[in-house]
Amino acid sequence: LVNGSDLIRPGEVWLVGAGPGDPDLLTRRAEKLLAAAEVVFYDALVGQDVLQFARGAAQIFVGKRAGRHFADQGRINQLLLSAANDRKRVVRLKGGDPSIFGRSLEEAAFLHARGVAVHICPGVTAASAAVASAGAALTSRGIARSVQFVTGRCAGEESDDDWIRSASPDTTIAVYMGRKDAPELASKLMARGFDALTPALVGVNVSLPDERLLRTTLQSLTLSTACLSDDEAVVVVIGPAAAATSIAHGPAFTATCEWRLVS
Amino acid sequence: LVNGSDLIRPGEVWLVGAGPGDPDLLTRRAEKLLAAAEVVFYDALVGQDVLQFARGAAQIFVGKRAGRHFADQGRINQLLLSAANDRKRVVRLKGGDPSIFGRSLEEAAFLHARGVAVHICPGVTAASAAVASAGAALTSRGIARSVQFVTGRCAGEESDDDWIRSASPDTTIAVYMGRKDAPELASKLMARGFDALTPALVGVNVSLPDERLLRTTLQSLTLSTACLSDDEAVVVVIGPAAAATSIAHGPAFTATCEWRLVS
Repeated sequence: LVNGSDLIRPGEVWLVGAGPGDPDLLTRRAEKLLAAAEVVFYDALVGQDVLQFARGAAQIFVGKRAGRHFADQGRINQLLLSAANDRKRVVRLKGGDPSIFGRSLEEAAFLHARGVAVHICPGVTAASAAVASAGAALTSRGIARSVQFVTGRCAGEESDDDWIRSASPDTTIAVYMGRKDAPELASKLMARGFDALTPALVGVNVSLPDERLLRTTLQSLTLSTACLSDDEAVVVVIGPAAAATSIAHGPAFTATCEWRLVS
Repeated sequence: LVNGSDLIRPGEVWLVGAGPGDPDLLTRRAEKLLAAAEVVFYDALVGQDVLQFARGAAQIFVGKRAGRHFADQGRINQLLLSAANDRKRVVRLKGGDPSIFGRSLEEAAFLHARGVAVHICPGVTAASAAVASAGAALTSRGIARSVQFVTGRCAGEESDDDWIRSASPDTTIAVYMGRKDAPELASKLMARGFDALTPALVGVNVSLPDERLLRTTLQSLTLSTACLSDDEAVVVVIGPAAAATSIAHGPAFTATCEWRLVS
């Protein structure tokens, strides 16, 4: 067992990235912090395979998932503060990387303003894991010069259409929490001039035993995401670098990833 | 010692993200792969603290750094192929995450086309680690709705100015390999209408013992990067989420990060 009790002092809170789900994609630091924690507050996207590293800790679910307990951000902030004030060693465990759509800043600011020491442990973000499983990439010379991370929600708000209007085909777009909104986003990108056959990779429960990687196109994105449920973690990566597996990889990859063509 | 020999079969190549530098920010899988490797090809940004996990492997430097050996991409491809053809268990170790500016696709495509099985292990990317050290974030509700990862080189090429013309202040911009080109990028962003006082975070050797985090602004970015050397790994994060430490964190963070104001 890894000893990390020197990493967290009583009354301190670590915001920790759990990565995409596979416990092997935890960082060594995250493993040590979980072993040292007395209380772990975890999200819906964090599974038992990861929580096993925190066997000695009270494990408190604060995630949002269909039909299960839901704690709003204000309540989560209060729970974290209360545990810190009780002089516990506290880990706040978030799927992926805390700095990317993880609301880490809101929790850190709340705690810091109340005198609690906060630290952040970065993690592997879902889009990186999705393209790794697929043998693809987020950037590649001559194919994708940059990558932009957005949320599905962005596509649904008028005020957020700015970035869609200026989206460029040589920038890969990674859409987080995009199950519901990806189709609308795809429509808007096509309206803006994106080729309907622009490749897209839909990663479902990436890195977990039930991982599915769906290769599709902008015009088929609605169909590709329609069959997914609320309980599944979905990341959509749009652009040629995400599809480069078709060029670069064939049978050699069937051992590590499974393609299901939806049409 | 972790046994990962079942992870790499002889003749296979794993492209592995080493994370930003701190060995505790390696993933558990990367640690296992390094322990199982017979040959490790590593970049300039990968240090001895990480390579120690591959004690049993031949360690071959293929990076680019001032005054040291340089291997071009074609030569690296050939070295990887040769090791795979020799039925070695091969790890190609890259700083950060292989899918973000890591040229992973070029190497994977080259090897796959020649019948070599390639797998990818994602890693923690430098921008995530920089904002984690700083107690900041890449996105935050109401502050930064998305984040875009670009390279310094992008700023120097006319053909790449498209994204700068369309850059939006509510998207965080993370500039990799940006030491030389960040000042030009800053000028272009200001010309495009960005506030000269837009906050920027310069992360130098992020997560390593000599990490430095410099808080600056777009208008001072030239000054802030002028003192850095070619040998230092630099990531520049532009936007209010990267600066939110000034609001959220104070003395509680001095133990984990050091601010040096450059003016």
